[in-house]
Amino acid sequence: MKTRRTKISELLKSEQTNIDVHVKGWVRTKRGNKHVNFIALNDGSTINNIQIVADPNSISEDILKKVTTGASIAVNGKLVESQGSGQSVEVHAETIEILGVADPEKYPLQPKKHSFEFLREIAHLRPRTNTFSAVLRMRHAMSFAVHKFFNEKGFNYMHTPIITGSDAEGAGEMFRVTTLDAKNPPLKEDGSVDYSEDFFEKETNLTVSGQLEGELGALAVGEIYTFGPTFRAENSNTTRHLAEFWMIEPEMAFYDLEDNMDLAEEFLKYLVQYALDNCADDLAFLESRLIDEEKNKPANEKSEMTLTEKLRFVAENDFERVTYTDAIDILRNSKPNKKKKFQYPVEGWGTDLQSEHERYLVEKHFKKPVILTNYPKDIKAFYMRMDDDGKTVSAMDILFPGIGEIVGGSQREERLDILMSRMTEMGIPHEEMDWYLDTRRYGTVPHSGFGLGFERLMIFVTGLGNIRDVIPFPRTPGNAEF
Amino acid sequence: MKTRRTKISELLKSEQTNIDVHVKGWVRTKRGNKHVNFIALNDGSTINNIQIVADPNSISEDILKKVTTGASIAVNGKLVESQGSGQSVEVHAETIEILGVADPEKYPLQPKKHSFEFLREIAHLRPRTNTFSAVLRMRHAMSFAVHKFFNEKGFNYMHTPIITGSDAEGAGEMFRVTTLDAKNPPLKEDGSVDYSEDFFEKETNLTVSGQLEGELGALAVGEIYTFGPTFRAENSNTTRHLAEFWMIEPEMAFYDLEDNMDLAEEFLKYLVQYALDNCADDLAFLESRLIDEEKNKPANEKSEMTLTEKLRFVAENDFERVTYTDAIDILRNSKPNKKKKFQYPVEGWGTDLQSEHERYLVEKHFKKPVILTNYPKDIKAFYMRMDDDGKTVSAMDILFPGIGEIVGGSQREERLDILMSRMTEMGIPHEEMDWYLDTRRYGTVPHSGFGLGFERLMIFVTGLGNIRDVIPFPRTPGNAEF
Repeated sequence: MKTRRTKISELLKSEQTNIDVHVKGWVRTKRGNKHVNFIALNDGSTINNIQIVADPNSISEDILKKVTTGASIAVNGKLVESQGSGQSVEVHAETIEILGVADPEKYPLQPKKHSFEFLREIAHLRPRTNTFSAVLRMRHAMSFAVHKFFNEKGFNYMHTPIITGSDAEGAGEMFRVTTLDAKNPPLKEDGSVDYSEDFFEKETNLTVSGQLEGELGALAVGEIYTFGPTFRAENSNTTRHLAEFWMIEPEMAFYDLEDNMDLAEEFLKYLVQYALDNCADDLAFLESRLIDEEKNKPANEKSEMTLTEKLRFVAENDFERVTYTDAIDILRNSKPNKKKKFQYPVEGWGTDLQSEHERYLVEKHFKKPVILTNYPKDIKAFYMRMDDDGKTVSAMDILFPGIGEIVGGSQREERLDILMSRMTEMGIPHEEMDWYLDTRRYGTVPHSGFGLGFERLMIFVTGLGNIRDVIPFPRTPGNAEF
Repeated sequence: MKTRRTKISELLKSEQTNIDVHVKGWVRTKRGNKHVNFIALNDGSTINNIQIVADPNSISEDILKKVTTGASIAVNGKLVESQGSGQSVEVHAETIEILGVADPEKYPLQPKKHSFEFLREIAHLRPRTNTFSAVLRMRHAMSFAVHKFFNEKGFNYMHTPIITGSDAEGAGEMFRVTTLDAKNPPLKEDGSVDYSEDFFEKETNLTVSGQLEGELGALAVGEIYTFGPTFRAENSNTTRHLAEFWMIEPEMAFYDLEDNMDLAEEFLKYLVQYALDNCADDLAFLESRLIDEEKNKPANEKSEMTLTEKLRFVAENDFERVTYTDAIDILRNSKPNKKKKFQYPVEGWGTDLQSEHERYLVEKHFKKPVILTNYPKDIKAFYMRMDDDGKTVSAMDILFPGIGEIVGGSQREERLDILMSRMTEMGIPHEEMDWYLDTRRYGTVPHSGFGLGFERLMIFVTGLGNIRDVIPFPRTPGNAEF
């Protein structure tokens, strides 16, 4: 009969004490003297460790010598009320078995502060740190909240294709997917590469968005969402860009722009509230990490709110809804614009907003999340619905403090003739998108959708500053390790 | 004030009648005469239609003319108890608005039987059919059940990388991901392609499995699972292979082979039970579809059980656990082997089982799902744990009736020295997998995991015969449409 281990998350919540327990995990630290040893043990089920108390009289020196940071052990012992402060229960070890050693001379994760840059280089081990295990658990919690939210609303999760033969989305540079010989590709008579010899008999790329295929689903079963990887082959080495990232893209038949905004706002609040309700321990750790990180910053660079205050603020306050046109007026008349403090002065109507403008609106003017709507058609995609003024489209972007754009969406153009003339205007060949146009030819309906960059959300809920630290194995220019 | 639409799934469950309702959807059929029209309306929220009763005296002929199969309409009316059979409620239309027409001369989905081959060519429209909307809804239900199961068990969903620089997994042919010029790639002095000029500064491919990265997570936080797209560039044109498919791969620290089997069996039963509990209407439709399809087959080719009987059978019966060695004995002494009915006769110990052998074990001998364990090491991957006999590894494959292998897994080799000598034996360079070996150098623990091909599961729960019909946009050799 096997002894079942109890997870540390359960032990720490146990209402029973003086019971035999079996616990396994990785040693975070060991301290003590010749009379007693205290081992902080973690198994990843929670950010909190359980304290193992080992008496050198009953546990051999040979074993205790191997109990070093990073080693894995199995402990049989008694769960008892803790005498010390900081924890409610501890385990008095009867036996300790060494499962795997971790040579202190070589193991890279010694109990000291490591820079995030260093930890990125050992991304295969960094989930064993407090910060990155907290991020991993919260990534799970946020992912589950996404599915739970949409499931409760009757949406269908749809797996849109990752490899796509369609290149009309225009959302950015793409990665080519191929099995052709890299050095000597087959050529056509005119000297160009003969993709008819490639695996899919045409040129294929990694998707930049599942939206267009998502619309096909919504126009059949009403409401769908995607949650999958998307790709941009852009040479951006910033703290906010990845070459491979995860997106959530709901598409809804019969939703107009207002319904779309209502859903997006409800969704974001739900996710943030879910984090508050389900990730209290990890959030508390990340909050104190952030306070620690900002300790030495000048007062004007420190966050005005703590991490949980910021999350609560978003969960509890209505987002400000303002048209692009009104936002331009606000920006034009703003102090930084008049004092020429913006790098890009705001003058005319029609140009895109820069991140400094978005930050001003969110962080200084409204001091809350902002939904910007009805952008000029020329700075938005072909599929966004034309407004009656003929100048703007029914787009909406949600801007978050510290993040900028977290959601981008629109009502989609459901009118075949207008959609086709927009495509012509923007140089998109109709033939290639015939399948998309079919949805407007047959039983077209008003519909809407938006996209949420999952890693942007993760930056917001964890308070981390670099997008490379909220995904397990970041892909950026020159980096595809592990 | 906007009138909110009510979904048809809710209308059909409504306990109130004689209330004003607003319903939108796509016309499936219209029949009737000059006194009354019956419109079967579907909005994708359920496989069932609601009947709209339209009186030509109150709805203009001009409108009714446009109410054709595939057209989208908005109806205001009264929900009343139905006089006819087959439905409990219907809507008596007061107004009908045409949202989008569907020219009966051109719309491809007329109310008649279409072949699955034809529907694959119009995969952008096929979710508007009963069968494919049922599959889409069930794909959602099964996906959600996956997340719910693991969330309840304290597993963490982990996004392992899609683009990988690691090519040691050896699970199959890979797709190259590149931004190099396809025709004139940069070359090194020795004439080979200079991948240091590629986006990631090395050769990169699409992942064939997230397992190895998943292990990194499990060896930090205990229990993780992946659920993401995986890729095989294999030229297989069969009813069971896709170039792009979704896999679920849990990895668990502190699990041995038996724990692994227990989890996999519990998981599969949970998924099947979830389908029975949550997809009754879609299952009923798919079951009758299957009966209809098999109507003209000879008796010995017909399914012995209906679709729901088959699901109930799996949910309620223990899987048979048998070692490879015992299975070989059973097969060697089996009637088809003695009568030379197998295409591949079973003789010695050590060769891999063919699908005909798996089917015999599952469908004829045990007549239930089978877990085959402890395969010869030479036919399994390097990371599977060596058994004490030095001949077999702690692998386990789960075989399902009609599907064959649905799950493949193993206890992982946690002993550094044995793992390294297995890698040497199999020609896998240690340097390339140094990050993987680190997990065995530092705090190694016994651990296990398995992979479930999501589309194989979908074939099982829907009763469809071709894997191309259980994913929205199948990718196969020569096919990457939409």
